[in-house]
Amino acid sequence: MTADNHTALCVLGTGLIGGSLLRAAAAAGYTGWGYNRSAPGVAAAQEAGFDVSGDLPAVLGRAAETDALIVVAVPMPAVNPMLDAIAQYAPQCPLTDVVSVKSPVAAAVRRYGLQERYVGGHPMAGTAESGWQATDPGLFRGAAWAVGVDPGTDPYAWTRVTRLALDCGSVVVPVTASEHDRAVARISHLPHVLAEALAVAGARGGDLALGLAAGSFRDGTRVAATAPGLVRAICEPNSDALLAVLDETLTALTEAREALSAQTSLDELTAAGHAARQRYESAQRWEITDTEPGAPGWLEKLRDAGRTGGVITRLGTGAEPN
Amino acid sequence: MTADNHTALCVLGTGLIGGSLLRAAAAAGYTGWGYNRSAPGVAAAQEAGFDVSGDLPAVLGRAAETDALIVVAVPMPAVNPMLDAIAQYAPQCPLTDVVSVKSPVAAAVRRYGLQERYVGGHPMAGTAESGWQATDPGLFRGAAWAVGVDPGTDPYAWTRVTRLALDCGSVVVPVTASEHDRAVARISHLPHVLAEALAVAGARGGDLALGLAAGSFRDGTRVAATAPGLVRAICEPNSDALLAVLDETLTALTEAREALSAQTSLDELTAAGHAARQRYESAQRWEITDTEPGAPGWLEKLRDAGRTGGVITRLGTGAEPN
Repeated sequence: MTADNHTALCVLGTGLIGGSLLRAAAAAGYTGWGYNRSAPGVAAAQEAGFDVSGDLPAVLGRAAETDALIVVAVPMPAVNPMLDAIAQYAPQCPLTDVVSVKSPVAAAVRRYGLQERYVGGHPMAGTAESGWQATDPGLFRGAAWAVGVDPGTDPYAWTRVTRLALDCGSVVVPVTASEHDRAVARISHLPHVLAEALAVAGARGGDLALGLAAGSFRDGTRVAATAPGLVRAICEPNSDALLAVLDETLTALTEAREALSAQTSLDELTAAGHAARQRYESAQRWEITDTEPGAPGWLEKLRDAGRTGGVITRLGTGAEPN
Repeated sequence: MTADNHTALCVLGTGLIGGSLLRAAAAAGYTGWGYNRSAPGVAAAQEAGFDVSGDLPAVLGRAAETDALIVVAVPMPAVNPMLDAIAQYAPQCPLTDVVSVKSPVAAAVRRYGLQERYVGGHPMAGTAESGWQATDPGLFRGAAWAVGVDPGTDPYAWTRVTRLALDCGSVVVPVTASEHDRAVARISHLPHVLAEALAVAGARGGDLALGLAAGSFRDGTRVAATAPGLVRAICEPNSDALLAVLDETLTALTEAREALSAQTSLDELTAAGHAARQRYESAQRWEITDTEPGAPGWLEKLRDAGRTGGVITRLGTGAEPN
């Protein structure tokens, strides 16, 4: 962990992501505690030795006393009640979230008047599993963790959030809420939609088709194993961006269909797809070294860096905000 | 290897599949040799100690002398010249292939008058790699290997092909050419098409999107790393079946798009996709135990068994054809 006396962490929701975060932060030396709505979820975390309870006012009261960083780690449909309680019990704490979509969370944060200390976050990690049983303190190691750089972002809160991500082993991708949402529609939400459609097409082939299925079908449908409710909670709040990229993809697939029908050719699609996958495989992250939270133009600089593959891998002393 | 004196094997094309087959069969005690068109391909196989040459008439002459099982292991566009040479130099040998589509190969086999000793085959194994360097004698272990049971199939040739698949560690799925082609359109060719489209959509998001991409994008685009020419050689000869399932999928995606747009809901797609993936994960193969090649109705029995998940894992003495 980096030298910092702000190691109090309050995690609301201790499922796969929140629970893994609590475990990763504890391993990095943080003092963490959390809230979970379900009694079995609380019991599972407590059995593992973590300070998790179902008493939300108490959990948030402790956060207010210690200037803890509060992390909202519940699915989008459950965000409002958390913000409501935060506004009541701990409105001054730095606040972030790990929800898969950022603009709707930011809008909700504004509705509850919590925007001043809020910085959106999204660790790009997960599995098809869920619940405390699936938590893993190494879940975020090597992952990209999107951290918001929208206009007006508070440097202090931003530094707390970025430190947490780095201390959990992630690299930080600075990105605005709307650009984040458009990007994840492409690389997370569309993959879910296509995986569901592929699984359906395969199963319609019956036992014979499923018995012949090998790697391409297994990998292409892996995320269809995710609970439908979770997929909906991830994708539906991002419907505008998802619709745009889904339409783009329907157009591309329809063009490929026409070329296959008219010329028995998949030339264009396979050439473009292969080039795209090559670009993905060879994409290089580069390190942003001059991060100075609060310096003039720092948000724009970070946003531009993130757009071209820049990531933050450490915060120097120059990154200590006032 | 099962007790059988027919262990002569002639492989035409020693790339990923053909080369792996030569190595797997050698490990199982077969006497195998092969042909490869490219001099570097021949050299690579020879350096590894395998009897591979570029002299097709000699390779096939040896097959004719020893009643070898001939395996056509070239992509669909290169099949005709192989069949032409077989018709000239070794027309009496039992003949199979490992091409990814079966009806077009069967039609070509008929054009060359080789249908009497031909039994189609398709091991459901592979990687995005190609060439001798990528060969692996364990490639077929645990894989499903489709073996043809079309009307008129010769029991002797069928047994030779089935034994080879079993000796390479695969289980045999009995299936007719047209049912095979419809099934693989669903579980192999459609996955390729969707992976290409997903890769394109991701790359259009630029460095930011690709930098945020994690498991769902990586797995969903894996097969887009396959050389475009190989994807085309796999998919284009099966265009009728692929178009049918592609249209089905375009309809499903368009319906999902409408539901997302009108009701902000992916309920139907995610429920169906999750159920389909669960069905795939829980699909059970069952063992066909009463295989009697040549017995009355044997082909229909095998075809029906294959349709409901039946596989052949061994051939008993009752499976020795006359």
